[in-house]
Amino acid sequence: MTSALVVAVPDDTMRERLQPALPGDAELIVWKPGDDGPTRRIDLLVLPYVTRYDLLSGLDPTSVGLVQSQSLGYDGAADALPAGIAFSNAVGVHEAPTAELAVTLVLASQRGWPEVGRNQAAELWDRPAYPGLIGRSVLLIGVGGIGREVETRLAPFDVKLTRVARTARTDEHGAIHSMAELPTLLPDADIVILAVPLSAETRGLVDGAFLDLLPHGALIVNVSRGPIVDTDALVLHVRSGAIRAALDVVDPEPLPAGHPLWSLPGSLISPHLGGNVQSMSMRVDPLILEQIALLRQGKQPKNVVIPKEQTQ
Amino acid sequence: MTSALVVAVPDDTMRERLQPALPGDAELIVWKPGDDGPTRRIDLLVLPYVTRYDLLSGLDPTSVGLVQSQSLGYDGAADALPAGIAFSNAVGVHEAPTAELAVTLVLASQRGWPEVGRNQAAELWDRPAYPGLIGRSVLLIGVGGIGREVETRLAPFDVKLTRVARTARTDEHGAIHSMAELPTLLPDADIVILAVPLSAETRGLVDGAFLDLLPHGALIVNVSRGPIVDTDALVLHVRSGAIRAALDVVDPEPLPAGHPLWSLPGSLISPHLGGNVQSMSMRVDPLILEQIALLRQGKQPKNVVIPKEQTQ
Repeated sequence: MTSALVVAVPDDTMRERLQPALPGDAELIVWKPGDDGPTRRIDLLVLPYVTRYDLLSGLDPTSVGLVQSQSLGYDGAADALPAGIAFSNAVGVHEAPTAELAVTLVLASQRGWPEVGRNQAAELWDRPAYPGLIGRSVLLIGVGGIGREVETRLAPFDVKLTRVARTARTDEHGAIHSMAELPTLLPDADIVILAVPLSAETRGLVDGAFLDLLPHGALIVNVSRGPIVDTDALVLHVRSGAIRAALDVVDPEPLPAGHPLWSLPGSLISPHLGGNVQSMSMRVDPLILEQIALLRQGKQPKNVVIPKEQTQ
Repeated sequence: MTSALVVAVPDDTMRERLQPALPGDAELIVWKPGDDGPTRRIDLLVLPYVTRYDLLSGLDPTSVGLVQSQSLGYDGAADALPAGIAFSNAVGVHEAPTAELAVTLVLASQRGWPEVGRNQAAELWDRPAYPGLIGRSVLLIGVGGIGREVETRLAPFDVKLTRVARTARTDEHGAIHSMAELPTLLPDADIVILAVPLSAETRGLVDGAFLDLLPHGALIVNVSRGPIVDTDALVLHVRSGAIRAALDVVDPEPLPAGHPLWSLPGSLISPHLGGNVQSMSMRVDPLILEQIALLRQGKQPKNVVIPKEQTQ
């Protein structure tokens, strides 16, 4: 008799959603890192959408097979994960809604928010001309999953889009410039969208020198990871009025009350909403069921970004 | 000797922009309805972007040739304009930026504003799952200039778009439903976008019965004219939480301080920003220069929506 495949999910809501679609030889339990136990082997451990990776260090490789994250970014996971446990991220779940939020932040900023929102709170009907998006130059840094979805969504807005990635190349949409070309590209950018993963290369990419090269009043949009931007440098530039910012991710996170980015007139903040929309389960659940099917068939799971062999 | 073509513009800013491009036999003066005079004949009278049409009633048909509006909508203009003066609207100037604002309002509402903005003001990092746009059903009422631009901009957002116009027909993008079909279409609409001109047919279109047919939590977006929506009915539905609203136009306008639409949690307000972005002059100025060229050549001007013969 083969033993059942044990799948741990972080809460009852997900268990109730997945149970009806589960094959008969798989079993769902509710458990997450930080809870007592686990009291038994877990073949597939689905993390909560918001996870502290340091809790992964307590996992026992003899008790846990594959860790499935509900996020796309996984900076910091490899440092905490014990050797012998593999880790998959959630490719395909968040790219489109995160790009949707990036375009939301671009449009809202170009059409007058946060000022329009402050005027609504003050019940003040005031109609200055805001910059608008039509005709603007947009510099998109990052052409991975999120970057491609941003590009698609911006296409009909009559913008001049320039794309940047680690290395220069050409694809079906034209030229992609290298990071080394940024000094010549930044002076023409009305809007910069950051859609790169956090790495040693991208940490602090947007520093004082980067911001100094942008035209007066340019907009920085960050939907990837807070530390890609040097927060102190950004605050100085937003405070002076030289730069506007629309940030879904910040450093530090959560942004503490009293931080200047909450209240500077040129700063629009969303609290790391990223891909977290009400329809997220429509994309997460099929991924988990696909992983279950692969594991039952003895196949390699999808989206393994930290293989078992490469954990520390 | 032929006399110069006299063009009146509403302010010095526009005069300074147009002067360098003006043909030698045309003359620019600064004058607008409500000012004293005019002391001479005006062949082309460019109205201020924001105009009270009742001031048109003081114009003298022997002194004024063509009135050029900077707006697309012209409800109320025909009632005030004296017989013998023609009136052109600003086709091509506002459709794209107004559609841009419509999509801004859709995205902002679906991604959590005005709550996200209120949380920013309160310096509160709170991360509920908001509805999002991906996968939602959008009912677009109006397939004229603005409607077409909305359609183009929504295309890459993975929505189910249904279009409605006065009469059912089919175009290159598929079926357009008639207004008479609304009772069967509304129950499936997560989002309704209003992009129809104000007319006897559309005044009060969105009334209590219309709103009652929508699913709980549906979003109404209005970028055309306030009186298309019955404000009292909307307030009742937004107050109960049944409907959310994102309104660039309202009835009355300006929205007075103390009006519930300013402060209801499900109401996002922008103050008739429409097509008014900083790049507007890039679209208005070429239209005025084109009208000057046509008048100099003795040709019919463009965009005449109230002909000389049809004024009262």
